Amino acid sequence: MRALILGGDGYLGWATAMAFAARGHDVLAVDNALRRRLCEEIGVRPLFPMPPLTKRADIFFAHSGKRVAVCEGDLRDAAFVDALFRDFEPEAAIHYAEQPSAPYSVMGPKEARLTLDNNLGVTHNVILSVLARAPRCHIIKLGTMGEYGTPNIDIEEGWIEIEHKGRKDSFLFPRQAGSLYHTTKVMDTDLLWFYVRAYSLRVTDLMQGPVYGISTDESDLDERLSPCFNYDDVFGTVVNRFLTQAAAGEPLTVYGKGGQTRGYLNIRDTINCVELAMQNPVAPGELRILNQFTETFSVNDLARIVRKAGRAMGLSVKVESIENPRRELEEHHYNPAHSGLLELGLKPHFLTQSVAEGMLEKILGRREAIDRSAFKPRVKWSRETFLKR
Amino acid sequence: MRALILGGDGYLGWATAMAFAARGHDVLAVDNALRRRLCEEIGVRPLFPMPPLTKRADIFFAHSGKRVAVCEGDLRDAAFVDALFRDFEPEAAIHYAEQPSAPYSVMGPKEARLTLDNNLGVTHNVILSVLARAPRCHIIKLGTMGEYGTPNIDIEEGWIEIEHKGRKDSFLFPRQAGSLYHTTKVMDTDLLWFYVRAYSLRVTDLMQGPVYGISTDESDLDERLSPCFNYDDVFGTVVNRFLTQAAAGEPLTVYGKGGQTRGYLNIRDTINCVELAMQNPVAPGELRILNQFTETFSVNDLARIVRKAGRAMGLSVKVESIENPRRELEEHHYNPAHSGLLELGLKPHFLTQSVAEGMLEKILGRREAIDRSAFKPRVKWSRETFLKR
Repeated sequence: MRALILGGDGYLGWATAMAFAARGHDVLAVDNALRRRLCEEIGVRPLFPMPPLTKRADIFFAHSGKRVAVCEGDLRDAAFVDALFRDFEPEAAIHYAEQPSAPYSVMGPKEARLTLDNNLGVTHNVILSVLARAPRCHIIKLGTMGEYGTPNIDIEEGWIEIEHKGRKDSFLFPRQAGSLYHTTKVMDTDLLWFYVRAYSLRVTDLMQGPVYGISTDESDLDERLSPCFNYDDVFGTVVNRFLTQAAAGEPLTVYGKGGQTRGYLNIRDTINCVELAMQNPVAPGELRILNQFTETFSVNDLARIVRKAGRAMGLSVKVESIENPRRELEEHHYNPAHSGLLELGLKPHFLTQSVAEGMLEKILGRREAIDRSAFKPRVKWSRETFLKR
Repeated sequence: MRALILGGDGYLGWATAMAFAARGHDVLAVDNALRRRLCEEIGVRPLFPMPPLTKRADIFFAHSGKRVAVCEGDLRDAAFVDALFRDFEPEAAIHYAEQPSAPYSVMGPKEARLTLDNNLGVTHNVILSVLARAPRCHIIKLGTMGEYGTPNIDIEEGWIEIEHKGRKDSFLFPRQAGSLYHTTKVMDTDLLWFYVRAYSLRVTDLMQGPVYGISTDESDLDERLSPCFNYDDVFGTVVNRFLTQAAAGEPLTVYGKGGQTRGYLNIRDTINCVELAMQNPVAPGELRILNQFTETFSVNDLARIVRKAGRAMGLSVKVESIENPRRELEEHHYNPAHSGLLELGLKPHFLTQSVAEGMLEKILGRREAIDRSAFKPRVKWSRETFLKR
């Protein structure tokens, strides 16, 4: 299929672009290297080498004979987005193009504005250009399980029927996010849902949990094809950070009690979920919401898994509880549905000990490059920290 | 109290600014005349004379001896908003500063972008400047009953307790809006709710129904102090439009079946509701949501009221059903709660025949100025119309 990958330079975008090209899709990856600039700005660096996007596409071509077409540009620019959709005529637009870090979004007013303006502005541009230039294009939007927060009721897959005072209706599942980043995703869903109803767009909104992993069939071809692997407190997701801490001989830093439970998935499953959504498009006027994760863990569970994998490899792994910089429940109910993608055919890659060990091995190969000062949380969910920037 | 009126040149903002000044509050009205520019752009004009904001403040001072301080500027400009809050040190910020028209927001891509960027951008700037410059300031935000849409269950006042699979939790009442404008208000609420929880802001979000009226104690002092009274299809609310159609001898144009039911209020009650909210501020970390209307009517009910008032004044009033340009239910359940403002002490002004006749009389005084071509809906909720712009 003709797939436009928006945010094609990012952790998931690049891995998706290569996998789709390898699987015979016609891929155009678009990015303005925002993530790289933000990493530089706050002084953190992905663990594996990351040549520029065009260079990576060339390396991938040299190994595979498959082309990821690349286009550099800012998706905040309406005319640029319009031209993209007009010229490429995508059947699917995979929308990863957002500022993806919760801590970054609450660093200070400047970062908050960038997050809101970028994320909403890009989503709106994509919607308007699909309407004008490619009305049959299926928008596949990366949302987040964080849109739901941690309610005291079971989380359904996007929708809920509410019975109230003897009457019933169906609604978007109530959403209440714990960071500005997650809130922009709630707002994205609001925006998409209006345009789906008003102009019969076709949208799949994937409520994804935190992703982990370094290895995909394509990135394994060459270290320079690795996903953008951050392990720092701002852009690193927790599994990737814990494994890097273990490799560096640093304690795994658990925020607070560690009972925070989320749904996780391997980066290989992100690719497969997005492809399944693309190959099973929704009808015009439908907003399909799928909860995209394969298993749930508490932070303490993850620490145990990483410690066990580390010890099996001869590492001494300590776990340390530190003051929680976030505002979140540290013990809570969590029972989210996630049958939609399994029904579409997803075969999950679980976080087994061998998967954790495989990741550790790769990380150990870059041990010298690990910046040990990058683990400590530098962003606190407090007015004082927020205004200090 | 020290009240900053954001959007102080608009239909409600100007009336509020005068009333608050008359009642002894210290008022600064801020606006960049966006509404005037948009009216010019689409070729519509308010019925009553509207000197520039500074001039109106002078006229009001001449009549009343009370000062509405005025500041011209764009609230999209973060530095400007920051300076406002730093210098004026408001106790309350009344936030009317949004593009307020549903049809305008779905006219075309340019208008859609303006609506989203302006409404969200201003709300975000206000939040960030309150945090930085006036953390105790109470934000009183004008939301809309349209955030709820027309669900098949009773609408509560902002929140709902949901029991689901044997467990319970409280949530924002589910929202699903019928235009992009209304959707931006849903998104405003999402944004405010995050910042309230994260940084203990004090926010009242007033879910207001469509407002009608020309007369307030202060605007009655001089015709040039009239609120910005639009009667056209884009910026005019339905009661104001129907009364102007009656005065012009044109049929009242009912969209579709006319069973669309909403909660309405008199502009005098808007002023009183906002003042009640201001005089009863919420605690830090609280988002109070109040449904701001005094009675519900269907469009057919309103047509009957206006016809009756018109006939009593010797006008021949016809009612015509025309194709509904909007996407909305024309027959639906509607039972919204609205006890919060009554409990704070609101004494409603209902839409009695004498109120309708009083409005008609004022409108008849400007009969020659009515543009009869402005009534017909020029905006359709369709992809074709949207893209034609």
